[in-house]
Amino acid sequence: MPTVGVIGGGQLARMMIPAAVNLGLELRVLAETAGESAAMAVTSIGSHTSLDDVLAFAETVDVVTFDHEHVPQEILRELVSRGIRVRPAPDALLYAQDKLLMREKLAEFGLPMPEWARIEKAADLDAFLADNGGRVVVKTARGGYDGKGVRVVSSAAEIEDWLALGEPLLAEELVEFQRELAQLVARRDSGELVAWPVVESIQRDGVCAEVIAPAPDSEGRVADVAAQIARTVAEGLGVTGVLAVELFQTTDQRLLINELAMRPHNTGHWTQDAAVTSQFEQHLRAVLDLPLGSTDARDTWAVMVNILGGPAEGSLADRYPHAFADQPAVKVHNYGKTPRPGRKVGHVNAYGPDLTETVVLARAAAAYFQEQNLG
Amino acid sequence: MPTVGVIGGGQLARMMIPAAVNLGLELRVLAETAGESAAMAVTSIGSHTSLDDVLAFAETVDVVTFDHEHVPQEILRELVSRGIRVRPAPDALLYAQDKLLMREKLAEFGLPMPEWARIEKAADLDAFLADNGGRVVVKTARGGYDGKGVRVVSSAAEIEDWLALGEPLLAEELVEFQRELAQLVARRDSGELVAWPVVESIQRDGVCAEVIAPAPDSEGRVADVAAQIARTVAEGLGVTGVLAVELFQTTDQRLLINELAMRPHNTGHWTQDAAVTSQFEQHLRAVLDLPLGSTDARDTWAVMVNILGGPAEGSLADRYPHAFADQPAVKVHNYGKTPRPGRKVGHVNAYGPDLTETVVLARAAAAYFQEQNLG
Repeated sequence: MPTVGVIGGGQLARMMIPAAVNLGLELRVLAETAGESAAMAVTSIGSHTSLDDVLAFAETVDVVTFDHEHVPQEILRELVSRGIRVRPAPDALLYAQDKLLMREKLAEFGLPMPEWARIEKAADLDAFLADNGGRVVVKTARGGYDGKGVRVVSSAAEIEDWLALGEPLLAEELVEFQRELAQLVARRDSGELVAWPVVESIQRDGVCAEVIAPAPDSEGRVADVAAQIARTVAEGLGVTGVLAVELFQTTDQRLLINELAMRPHNTGHWTQDAAVTSQFEQHLRAVLDLPLGSTDARDTWAVMVNILGGPAEGSLADRYPHAFADQPAVKVHNYGKTPRPGRKVGHVNAYGPDLTETVVLARAAAAYFQEQNLG
Repeated sequence: MPTVGVIGGGQLARMMIPAAVNLGLELRVLAETAGESAAMAVTSIGSHTSLDDVLAFAETVDVVTFDHEHVPQEILRELVSRGIRVRPAPDALLYAQDKLLMREKLAEFGLPMPEWARIEKAADLDAFLADNGGRVVVKTARGGYDGKGVRVVSSAAEIEDWLALGEPLLAEELVEFQRELAQLVARRDSGELVAWPVVESIQRDGVCAEVIAPAPDSEGRVADVAAQIARTVAEGLGVTGVLAVELFQTTDQRLLINELAMRPHNTGHWTQDAAVTSQFEQHLRAVLDLPLGSTDARDTWAVMVNILGGPAEGSLADRYPHAFADQPAVKVHNYGKTPRPGRKVGHVNAYGPDLTETVVLARAAAAYFQEQNLG
């Protein structure tokens, strides 16, 4: 039985379990602790920053893949040097780990991006501010996620602490965007590449709150350009597995690359219930270099709403009696995590022929799991 | 987190895993050995005929349910007497365990069935043969499945060995049927009951080979009668969980009850990919007395084809490169079992707007996993 090893025990690893069960693949997970979201598939406890832990784990699987981007390059390269299959390969993953290298590389491909600059000292930022309206975004090159490691600033004083660390930073223009999109594709070593429909991603406080699939009014040019951008990134960087390309659709109708992720992504959770092949099944197929599944949508519209924080007391399951009775057709995904303000603890997927109705169903179901609605 | 305990580690327990993962329920399985199909969820090794094994397992879960019908009544009743929740309850499960009691009970409800008789001695069978055309079906009351414990006979001499066991047998007329149907419903303790569309089940050598959902030309009377029969059975017997009622549609257009199962059933596997709520998710909801999910079909047609036996050498996964490349939209379910002639080792589900095309897709995909087709 082919065995896939996932480094990291979060909800993305957890959501690979159903796909692995269906396809009869063995899934093994290296987690920091036994109680993480992917607990059922955890076979090793250890740190993703320990070469010994990662190596011992990697030697038990056919291919190593990831729940997150935080495994150091040195460790990944050591695995590769020992003949262990790592997908996406370190040479590709690098560009999901380091936003500055990502900008530099995508610029070589001539891909559309916000204005950006490498910032090593206060004067670099001053110059970039002067050219970009006096207010810009600054990001740490590494380690940020869900809005962390991101600041909107109008002076170098606001990033003094980051500059003091001596690591180069990335500055980006504050894009005037109409909305945010995400294009997911999957690619395998043989070169086969498939794209799901482009989606709209609605963010709140830097965190994905809702996703609409497909993005309304995206048929034609927007869908084609988004897919072409993601294809160029996947092929240019040699990505294996699922690639998520987050995009800004600007007020003047350009698509600019915001972020990359080389793993299943929050903007692809709708595929679990509303695409022929889910992003989790596809990722497993891709890292094993198996032919990819159909990415067709199964319904006219799908809407995903994240459950952020969850109830202040008790568990999501405490709300099932009311939520299920009220919304018998909405699919609930519970990550088995303890509710905590702002934490992603689950999501719901709704689908149907009418967008407004589908949005209402998904939001109504998700509301049962948020503190303000006690069901 | 609500914990469901499943007795038996076969593919039905295995296929509850994805539903449990999605809903954030804890699934625990009592299996005979560690390597069974549901291995990933196995938490206890023991025998379902050992009171000690079953009791020790049952005390770790909120509700006990089943992968099969073979747990002895004495054990189930002991669990209940100790306050352990068992669903379906022993009083209901009894009628799925004993075909003779089932006939007697359903006769009380006035439900349509083949002619049948209790057989304790050769003379009983002689009389039944005389009344039913000289050729009838005889079944052991307990322990049969997938064509085992069933004989078509024309003389008492052919069941001498069974009569010698001293257990009463069930004789049934050889029904002239046009086709076989299956009606699945789910019921929870609160009384809520939902029905999936009635399906056609195509059997070969006493084993389910294919299922078409919904059964062609069943709209209207056939669907209504099938659902009404299953509702009467579920309510009459007080079934909790999924109930499968296998039916004969006779050449003179009557629906007669063939068999009952009180658990997810082979004729409901299509729901995994083509109903809003799968039978596995629904069974978990029902045994926890949670509101039931929508049973709507997601496509005009769904076709399930069993993978019986599988390749003579190697595993199902060895065939993935060809099968997946040829059928990117068919969903494969691999039970992780070693292929063996006649063994159910997996199934495929296809769905779409055209029945003929959907049948062709499902059969073509399944053929990749059978010995005669080496892909």
